[in-house]
Amino acid sequence: MSKTPSNPKGTRDFLPLELSKRNYILDVLVKNFKLFGFSQIETPALEKNTTLLGKYGNEGDRLIFKILNSGEKLKKADIESLQKNKLSSFSNSISEKGLRYDLTVPLARFVAQHRNDIVFPFKRFQIQNVWRADRPQHGRFQEFTQCDADVIGSNSIIQEIELIKLYDKIFTELGFNDLVFNVNHRLILKGLANYIGADNNLNDFISIIDKLDKVGIDLVIKEIKELNKDVSVSELQLLLENKNISIEKLSTLFKDYPPSIKGLNDLSSILEFFSLKNSLNNKIRFDLTLARGLNYYTGTIIEVACETNSRLGSLGGGGRYDDLTSLFNLKNTSGVGISFGLDRIFLLMDEKNLFPDYLENSFDIIIINFGIKYLKNMFPIIDMFRKQNKKVFVYPDEVKINKQFSYANLHNASFAVIMGENEFNNDEIVVKNMTDGSQSTYLLNNVNSISF
Amino acid sequence: MSKTPSNPKGTRDFLPLELSKRNYILDVLVKNFKLFGFSQIETPALEKNTTLLGKYGNEGDRLIFKILNSGEKLKKADIESLQKNKLSSFSNSISEKGLRYDLTVPLARFVAQHRNDIVFPFKRFQIQNVWRADRPQHGRFQEFTQCDADVIGSNSIIQEIELIKLYDKIFTELGFNDLVFNVNHRLILKGLANYIGADNNLNDFISIIDKLDKVGIDLVIKEIKELNKDVSVSELQLLLENKNISIEKLSTLFKDYPPSIKGLNDLSSILEFFSLKNSLNNKIRFDLTLARGLNYYTGTIIEVACETNSRLGSLGGGGRYDDLTSLFNLKNTSGVGISFGLDRIFLLMDEKNLFPDYLENSFDIIIINFGIKYLKNMFPIIDMFRKQNKKVFVYPDEVKINKQFSYANLHNASFAVIMGENEFNNDEIVVKNMTDGSQSTYLLNNVNSISF
Repeated sequence: MSKTPSNPKGTRDFLPLELSKRNYILDVLVKNFKLFGFSQIETPALEKNTTLLGKYGNEGDRLIFKILNSGEKLKKADIESLQKNKLSSFSNSISEKGLRYDLTVPLARFVAQHRNDIVFPFKRFQIQNVWRADRPQHGRFQEFTQCDADVIGSNSIIQEIELIKLYDKIFTELGFNDLVFNVNHRLILKGLANYIGADNNLNDFISIIDKLDKVGIDLVIKEIKELNKDVSVSELQLLLENKNISIEKLSTLFKDYPPSIKGLNDLSSILEFFSLKNSLNNKIRFDLTLARGLNYYTGTIIEVACETNSRLGSLGGGGRYDDLTSLFNLKNTSGVGISFGLDRIFLLMDEKNLFPDYLENSFDIIIINFGIKYLKNMFPIIDMFRKQNKKVFVYPDEVKINKQFSYANLHNASFAVIMGENEFNNDEIVVKNMTDGSQSTYLLNNVNSISF
Repeated sequence: MSKTPSNPKGTRDFLPLELSKRNYILDVLVKNFKLFGFSQIETPALEKNTTLLGKYGNEGDRLIFKILNSGEKLKKADIESLQKNKLSSFSNSISEKGLRYDLTVPLARFVAQHRNDIVFPFKRFQIQNVWRADRPQHGRFQEFTQCDADVIGSNSIIQEIELIKLYDKIFTELGFNDLVFNVNHRLILKGLANYIGADNNLNDFISIIDKLDKVGIDLVIKEIKELNKDVSVSELQLLLENKNISIEKLSTLFKDYPPSIKGLNDLSSILEFFSLKNSLNNKIRFDLTLARGLNYYTGTIIEVACETNSRLGSLGGGGRYDDLTSLFNLKNTSGVGISFGLDRIFLLMDEKNLFPDYLENSFDIIIINFGIKYLKNMFPIIDMFRKQNKKVFVYPDEVKINKQFSYANLHNASFAVIMGENEFNNDEIVVKNMTDGSQSTYLLNNVNSISF
């Protein structure tokens, strides 16, 4: 192979600095997931095609990366399908497994499979990669990390409240205080569809509303008119333009459709909770036009918006789904969850300079190498530094001291520790502050007094 | 779908307790990798087949999971190859990418690709999953985690010394003090091959020696005789039976093959380093029969053995490879690395009860739920507990108190915090110690005095 190799399009190598920033975000997530009583699980990257297919719509099925069967099993290739251009039948004849497409279907599979080994309500978080055979483009990857926290097996709105608190605590710790948690409820959207006469096409109605931010109100109205020409377009327009309408007002408008009242009441309790002593650092707001496209939501829905940078899209989202595990034959198990958009959070934090400076330091201390004879005497001190949680880089090669110092600077080391012939003879080391250039000399048996 | 779903054979779901134990090990690894100046990188699970194929031998190529091309690209299926039973040509016609098989080839690809963005010597660690289409069997998985630390771009034996110190520090922190770090050097094995007259088949010779522990000395001797009937079998037998022979003695025996003297000197310096003030908690020992099968090693090799449980195999291993990146057209870049066998370390720690008890606690405190009215008053305290790094589980549903307590016990909660009507009226909470059953009452404005 003669040319420079590369990773596949749509995938990424993470170099140390970028990865340490990503991990900084993930550490805040993990810490807080645990503080909120969530336990971590992991599922395999490989899932059976029977688990994956038919869960994400036709488009989703097309985007699942399939694993080629190996060895003799390849002989079962259905060539007839290939020749008839039935490509999915062909690929199904030579593939039994695929790569995880999201963390939600694996969670449903996991909960159904291990129902006897877990205790409900089951609060789990999961941070793993997923794969989608999307066309690679700027900011869209074929391999990316999802971060989900879900509670399975409780109908209580305490979960919604806790999840919003979790969003608020995590985003606050990451440095955000100007986010808006937009909330809505699928039963309210049903009420809206009912009110304007579009309730016979609910999923389509929701998909159209979901595009409002992208395509604008005129196109939304037009598409909804196409859905059902008898809808009260003027009423709809009025409501969509007034998306933060009061819940009391909607309760009057939707009174003929009782299920929506349950949605309005739940949302009202949630919003009311976050007042006075339980107020949030960021904002929470009812948004009648929040739809979230996914079919499986049945209750509260939530999305995290950064209004000072709306082109980026939402930083996270989630909602309640009452019947997801029934896909795997476990019924009546309500779930609610949120997820964090790691890549977008990363971009916004980078833009806003929210990452701490210390992430730039690959290590704290460099040990200048004048030869193994000196290093032998220094290792007990090196061990001590490491016990004090200092990241210590021992320069491996006995090269010019300038080269070693420039290596230290490139890695933002704070201190260099030096033992040459002189120091060796005097049982000393020299500690050089790499920021201000100052140097101090310490006796080896007095190194405890070094303050970094 | 009517039956219970399952994950694919050879893969694993990790439930919370098992995962928290795995993560306990990984946390110790990550912490120490950083303390030793290693920086973390990640590479994608998907690699181009051109990167993967031809690097692991024929058997390895067969075990790589290939990703099926999607859409129209499937039409390029080479049906003729399929009909002629040329299965690998067939699969190559419909696959361009595969799943990462180890972390070493991706590292070589990464270093070659990003050579201008990294500074040498480059100390990196990487903890990611790899996939092998091995037949699933007890203790062997198709998807498992590798944990590698490597240094690229330095010939110095200081690296070997640091890597052995790293092994010792990590295994000590995990609770092991009876391990043996067996070391050898490929140049010494070359010297041995030369000495007994088997040097024209070096790779085969090394593969055979590598099987010594599994198949015994008689079979090894027999196979080496097959390799070359003129080898001095009696000499070999003597040496293999005396595998901890002194390096001085070997220097005399191998004096006619100068390259082996470099290996003996290096190993001697390493062993000598770990004496007196630089001694290890575990043992280090020269083992002439240590071979490590992989072809790419060229210098020092090391393997971590638990002699009190040898059936488990080695807990880790590594070595120096002088030419790995030349696979990707980057020459003269010596590397040395070690890896940790996470699954085996896990098994042994479980057997020896080395995991701390606190891993069993899914959370520290349960908040007993008597209704949202009470919870509203409790959340400021809940926030406070979480700020104190307590893991708090708010029971979401207003169910019988016994059910809530039994949930707490199943998750090993240490404390329950209760506010019923009485406490609500008196601005109090009750804290129940779940271990000894004792209860204390605190005024809400005096909760700072609670000691957990």
